[in-house]
Amino acid sequence: MERVHVQYEKLRDYMARMLEVGLGYPEDVAAVSAEGLVEADARGHASHGVARIMMYTDEVDQGNCDPNGKPEVAHETPISLVVNGNMAPGFAASRFALERTLEKAKRSGTCMTVVRESCHFGMAAFWAEKAADEGMMGVALTNTLKAGIPLFGKERLLGTNPICVAIPTGRSPHFILDMATTTVAIGKIEVQARRGGIMPEGWAVDQNGRDTVDAVAVAETSRFNKSPYGGLLYLGGAGETLGGHKGYGLGLLVELLTAGLSLGTASFDTYEKSSGICHYFQATSLDLFGDRKRIEDHMASILDRITSSSRANGRERIYIHGEKEHERRKQSLKEGVYLDPATWERLDAYADRFGIERLEP
Amino acid sequence: MERVHVQYEKLRDYMARMLEVGLGYPEDVAAVSAEGLVEADARGHASHGVARIMMYTDEVDQGNCDPNGKPEVAHETPISLVVNGNMAPGFAASRFALERTLEKAKRSGTCMTVVRESCHFGMAAFWAEKAADEGMMGVALTNTLKAGIPLFGKERLLGTNPICVAIPTGRSPHFILDMATTTVAIGKIEVQARRGGIMPEGWAVDQNGRDTVDAVAVAETSRFNKSPYGGLLYLGGAGETLGGHKGYGLGLLVELLTAGLSLGTASFDTYEKSSGICHYFQATSLDLFGDRKRIEDHMASILDRITSSSRANGRERIYIHGEKEHERRKQSLKEGVYLDPATWERLDAYADRFGIERLEP
Repeated sequence: MERVHVQYEKLRDYMARMLEVGLGYPEDVAAVSAEGLVEADARGHASHGVARIMMYTDEVDQGNCDPNGKPEVAHETPISLVVNGNMAPGFAASRFALERTLEKAKRSGTCMTVVRESCHFGMAAFWAEKAADEGMMGVALTNTLKAGIPLFGKERLLGTNPICVAIPTGRSPHFILDMATTTVAIGKIEVQARRGGIMPEGWAVDQNGRDTVDAVAVAETSRFNKSPYGGLLYLGGAGETLGGHKGYGLGLLVELLTAGLSLGTASFDTYEKSSGICHYFQATSLDLFGDRKRIEDHMASILDRITSSSRANGRERIYIHGEKEHERRKQSLKEGVYLDPATWERLDAYADRFGIERLEP
Repeated sequence: MERVHVQYEKLRDYMARMLEVGLGYPEDVAAVSAEGLVEADARGHASHGVARIMMYTDEVDQGNCDPNGKPEVAHETPISLVVNGNMAPGFAASRFALERTLEKAKRSGTCMTVVRESCHFGMAAFWAEKAADEGMMGVALTNTLKAGIPLFGKERLLGTNPICVAIPTGRSPHFILDMATTTVAIGKIEVQARRGGIMPEGWAVDQNGRDTVDAVAVAETSRFNKSPYGGLLYLGGAGETLGGHKGYGLGLLVELLTAGLSLGTASFDTYEKSSGICHYFQATSLDLFGDRKRIEDHMASILDRITSSSRANGRERIYIHGEKEHERRKQSLKEGVYLDPATWERLDAYADRFGIERLEP
């Protein structure tokens, strides 16, 4: 049988086994991590999917992540929370933080939470949407390994620092904006590196600060930290004319709200003694602003006006953020989750290394 | 004497007089409005400066703004506030909302506020920094007249929908990111229109959805709503390759947090029966996350690492958001506020119309 798609639950259970056997994740941590990774592939975001087994293995191998680390509350008020992840896997620290965030927000109307000393937490939407599922607005931000170049600089210092906001609209799917503040996430460059090696101009610069299309070189520079120079551009690109100062500003904002507020490790110091990754979560009840149902309906009517507006020539549809992923997920649940050939090969390599059976479709 | 610069207080008092005599603004509303406009010019943002007298006059002339409108609280909790601006000038409604937001945030740790039925509120940073001045993080968002094109669409529907976040760092200036989610603010296109008529490619599309450099045509299409088609592009541009879906997503997010949460008028329906502009404000105490002083110091150390990093060839300095404006403001206070020739002419025209003396340097 050709290895292209794999059934959702089968892939999820396989990845949980791989994380548990291969990396020593506790069973419940392996389960939530596997779910998060497979959700990304199921939604068409291979950049945050099961191919990340490489990064999670690196985190443990290099002593940056403690699979048995236990997150703990470092500070709290009725509307805020500071969590020390104690080097636990990112899914463990984030689940710990988010459960408490949602509890507080249900009681108090909102809760703002920062997490320090965590690890990579997967796709930001996986966390923010948990608030929207409870009828609240959700925010999830994280810093990352150092990847991006400040405007007018050439050192790789800030992370890809994604912003995710999920807003319930009384229907499915929620509005879910989930965006790296760099032009693309490093994961997208890794996908290009696995799939052919070339990427569009405008995504990154080389070690001399020049535009490059060599996805393999940029992905390896980031992964192995080969040089302090070269890396991703922020949304708006290299100069100010098309708004590069704005993308850089959003990346810096995320750094301040994650590493800054949590007294944690900034992206430029991550993956030294520990991963040190920091997150920001927020859940906010719509009830704070009046009748939740009316607000949801009003938001839905705004989105309807956008999607029913005149389309540009050659365009078939105007999308709301979250729709593409929602539809792709439905397809993945029906037809199986698509994995590209390089991802199949990577899973085989790690299966062999961990001494577990290879995944069959 | 050549008309180039004008003393800060002189310009401020002159504008207050113009708004009071010419538009019938109450004295206190004229004062805060004039301060907000002159602050923009003093910081080098002519796009939000005194040349806006045209827009504020249009708002009153067209019956979209009631100079004597009285904002009122429509809904509140200890951590949230909904204000109905009742068609008051944007500076009146925003001052009303922000004073109460800061009071609540001081008592409760945070306050999230939405305002509906307001008018143009000037430069977003003018409001967000008032929270930072009190040692709190400040957020200011607003929708605007319809100006931007949803990705894959061609109708002008969403506003330039700026995002401003101000964060105190224990020193001057605060971190202040203030950015239209469109590639540029409509005000920047108006500046290009006043100064020569040509703008860079990538800022806007014409009524056929094609890239255009004709700043005059785009500014007039927006101002006079000549056609439903054509307008500004969002950060990341027209397609998805360089992240146009992200900029469009940020614009849509601001629309949901302003018009959506407040049950107010979306950008595509503003300036019909009333301006209908909606804002979102938030103030949040750093104390929620532990020791404020340590957090500020940690944030400052992150910013220092960025500004002291290696610069790209030919670049003299890496900036933090808010620094350029802070330095330009100091210069303006010393040497006078710069106004370009077209702005001088515009002020003359409105002075003549309102029957007040022309401004002299």
